Amino acid sequence: MANPVLVEVTRGTLVESVHRGSIAIANAAGTLTVSLGDVETPVYPRSSLKPLQALPLVESGAAEAFHLTDEEVALACASHSGEPMHTVRVAAWLRRIGCTEEDLACGPHPVRYEPVWREMIARGEQPTRIHNNCSGKHTGFLTLARHLGVPTPGYEKHDHPVQQAVAKALADLAGVSIDMPWGVDGCAAPNFALPLSAFARALAKLADPSALSGARAAAARRIVHAMATYPELVSGTGRACATLMRAGRGRVVVKTGAEGVFAGIVPELGLGIALKIDDGATRASETVIAALLGKLELLHGDDAAGELVRAPVTNTRNATVGERRPATALQTLTL
Amino acid sequence: MANPVLVEVTRGTLVESVHRGSIAIANAAGTLTVSLGDVETPVYPRSSLKPLQALPLVESGAAEAFHLTDEEVALACASHSGEPMHTVRVAAWLRRIGCTEEDLACGPHPVRYEPVWREMIARGEQPTRIHNNCSGKHTGFLTLARHLGVPTPGYEKHDHPVQQAVAKALADLAGVSIDMPWGVDGCAAPNFALPLSAFARALAKLADPSALSGARAAAARRIVHAMATYPELVSGTGRACATLMRAGRGRVVVKTGAEGVFAGIVPELGLGIALKIDDGATRASETVIAALLGKLELLHGDDAAGELVRAPVTNTRNATVGERRPATALQTLTL
Repeated sequence: MANPVLVEVTRGTLVESVHRGSIAIANAAGTLTVSLGDVETPVYPRSSLKPLQALPLVESGAAEAFHLTDEEVALACASHSGEPMHTVRVAAWLRRIGCTEEDLACGPHPVRYEPVWREMIARGEQPTRIHNNCSGKHTGFLTLARHLGVPTPGYEKHDHPVQQAVAKALADLAGVSIDMPWGVDGCAAPNFALPLSAFARALAKLADPSALSGARAAAARRIVHAMATYPELVSGTGRACATLMRAGRGRVVVKTGAEGVFAGIVPELGLGIALKIDDGATRASETVIAALLGKLELLHGDDAAGELVRAPVTNTRNATVGERRPATALQTLTL
Repeated sequence: MANPVLVEVTRGTLVESVHRGSIAIANAAGTLTVSLGDVETPVYPRSSLKPLQALPLVESGAAEAFHLTDEEVALACASHSGEPMHTVRVAAWLRRIGCTEEDLACGPHPVRYEPVWREMIARGEQPTRIHNNCSGKHTGFLTLARHLGVPTPGYEKHDHPVQQAVAKALADLAGVSIDMPWGVDGCAAPNFALPLSAFARALAKLADPSALSGARAAAARRIVHAMATYPELVSGTGRACATLMRAGRGRVVVKTGAEGVFAGIVPELGLGIALKIDDGATRASETVIAALLGKLELLHGDDAAGELVRAPVTNTRNATVGERRPATALQTLTL
């Protein structure tokens, strides 16, 4: 059966395009408090997995041993925009662990933050690995490899101890087998697939780590605190994640992922939120996570966040010609 | 009922994202030879409407009166990439009809063709109205206004004689009411909504205009000939429309539209093809039109066109990590 339409985009009097998807919200006991659409077929969380991929870095003691700041922990969970605030910090962190940019397994891609990208084009500069939005995650992987005393080359391979530590932590928190399916992410690291329900359960355990072991619970709390404290390091200037976390005033952590995924962590409610848009559209995943946070009364009347829920569609003359908005199934969803 | 999944995007062993949509193929007698999904709810053809929006320009005699070349007729039907081959020709055409760029109602947007865009950034240049992908269409509208002897200001308004001429031609060919719903397109001109079935019928009449009046039939033939002759003027270097028309070696005309629409015109078969991806994804509309042309044996074994049917998904290391491909409903569709 098809997943419900969650978001619609209008033009004039008609709905022009629609986005279907699934939503799972769970508590730390594993109960699904919301289940809309198919939440049992494995999906790739993509970059929304990063808070969980960072767990072994902190839990193992690597973060402490290498004196990681909360800013660096936030960067380990980031899909950053390649702004100087990101690249300068990642470069310093790499130096501190005795690595260089050459040790990063991620490839270059255009810098997302347009002012920096324009400057680079004007200067004839090419993006490098450190500009990859995942360079903080990869530096976290390198830090863990150093701490474990294992070779750093190959740290992005599925059978490397770093990735196996990630798989183990994820399997534990999500309640799935460590042999879960996986694919290669845009940054060359493994991305593990799991049901949206299981992903929401894992996120709920970051929101409420009280039942976890001491070291793991402390690691979960530190990751959530670091992300909530540095929304722009987790994403970038003007990005949806930063906008929503700023609007949440520390009460919520969100993380986007490619192909229409969003993760949410709400410590005060002990809830984990996971959603996937079937067609992979970011415009829809942003609308859905913003609408859900609005329903949970976590956006504090913030205008920029509100515009993620209902966004005008504008044309090249800056006239409003339509609207992107929650469809009925999302509008009527009670949390 | 949900439309069928037409395209799937894989990563590793799993399908990561899917795209649903509808397909209508019709002949000039109005018979639907293919009808998949909902083909009766009105959709916006967006820029795939341009060959029909150009009909009054040619049919009225305006194109002849202003000595339009086939290159200019192709540009009237174009969503161009803002390359010099486009902007230089549009500028010369504007001068010839006694207009300037200031007369264009479309707004500026970043130039699509990256080498030109990079040069503009490096020189600190801003895009202007002539860089709008629709500047040829708008120059066609201005040409028609000049020929009709009506004011050029306001030519983009729904009640202006130019747009009413477009509505009349479209209503005639599609067999719909002239009072069809409409919205404002990205370029500020009206875009008329009609069922995919009716849109396919109108395109079929461009493919086989034998039952149209003499002037209209001649205009249809000229538009199709101009687009088939100048694929890069209709789109741009390396674009899907150019790739598919080059692979078709003059046997097929295709035109993309925003929000996941594609139009196809196949004169030798007398067929019009119209498709819409529910979620608006261009990656999916390109896969569907390419797959349909492949089934019609119009791609002549062209590798670039074949890669539009089945495209590798690559990561930032240029490793292939998945595939974009026709889903079962499209694979098994017989034309």
